[in-house]
Amino acid sequence: MKIVVIGGTGTIGKAIVHELSPRHEIISVGHKSGEMQVDISDYESIHNMYEKLENIDAIILATGIVHFGALKDMKPKDYEIGINSKLMGQVNVVSTGLKYVNDNGSFTLTSGILNRDPIQYGSSAAMVNGAIDGFIKGAAIEMPRGIRINGVSPTVISESMENYAPYFRGYEPVPAARAALAYSKSVEGLQTGQIYCAG
Amino acid sequence: MKIVVIGGTGTIGKAIVHELSPRHEIISVGHKSGEMQVDISDYESIHNMYEKLENIDAIILATGIVHFGALKDMKPKDYEIGINSKLMGQVNVVSTGLKYVNDNGSFTLTSGILNRDPIQYGSSAAMVNGAIDGFIKGAAIEMPRGIRINGVSPTVISESMENYAPYFRGYEPVPAARAALAYSKSVEGLQTGQIYCAG
Repeated sequence: MKIVVIGGTGTIGKAIVHELSPRHEIISVGHKSGEMQVDISDYESIHNMYEKLENIDAIILATGIVHFGALKDMKPKDYEIGINSKLMGQVNVVSTGLKYVNDNGSFTLTSGILNRDPIQYGSSAAMVNGAIDGFIKGAAIEMPRGIRINGVSPTVISESMENYAPYFRGYEPVPAARAALAYSKSVEGLQTGQIYCAG
Repeated sequence: MKIVVIGGTGTIGKAIVHELSPRHEIISVGHKSGEMQVDISDYESIHNMYEKLENIDAIILATGIVHFGALKDMKPKDYEIGINSKLMGQVNVVSTGLKYVNDNGSFTLTSGILNRDPIQYGSSAAMVNGAIDGFIKGAAIEMPRGIRINGVSPTVISESMENYAPYFRGYEPVPAARAALAYSKSVEGLQTGQIYCAG
């Protein structure tokens, strides 16, 4: 398969590329590095990326930011960061990609544990993750031409614990390589409308 | 208790008012009718509403719109409708209201069944409902002064089947009066961070 990994230069993305590259052709897309660049919060940038790609079997998204902050300090513009990037960035990659992805292809999005198991400062992450999970459920039943869509909802990644440990006390981190298996299952299996909890 | 029902003039809202008014002081807030008006998609309008209210024990939200449309036709501006109204409208009522609601008060939001049991044309509703459910989980653990937050996730309402039946074939509708019980449980009970599935 020809698989595009958006966020392929990140912690989870690199593990996904490592897991899939022995069996497939991978195009790693980053924000500023990678073989190709895209800003998923910019609708035009998404269009430009697809115009340069051909014959795509799978799109994997392992990217997108949200703002972390105390609930009492969160303002509309803080929630907008996650809405524009991690949420609508991924949704727009799917909407736009519907006409580019091959028959029986797939989209695999990334949400995260915080809407299931919340932490302090995580109200925006919980909101955005829930939105992504919900979108996948809703979109899966309307996908054309046998195209599938799933999500991976990882807990905190072992490789990120150096920075995030104080916010995730008591959480068992998952190595990126193990989280990457869920992306493999989504792309190489036949399920659709699933949210794979990794970790 | 003094309970503000935003959307109190709607189908579910009227049933909530009917359920709670024998035991509590109710202020019914509508978009254009009701005792007071608010446009929850307008941040200033929310502020103005709170400035006119005093000594609030509970805020109930039974309002907010989303765009229904075929996945292949959905554009960013279509998703924005639900993000600005049903999602961020409710979130902004909570964020803004944190300093106005009494100690041990509560917020009760409304999501809906479509992120759990999707229908055609419902990708935005599924996204927004998932976001609301996620926000409630994340926000509940950071609520100050004993304030609680829950959500009600109703299936299609019996009273709305006249218009919605073709989109909800096979769904067992719930009478608004039965859905209203979930709002009563949220406001009059002591649970927090819960999503009550009504129907």
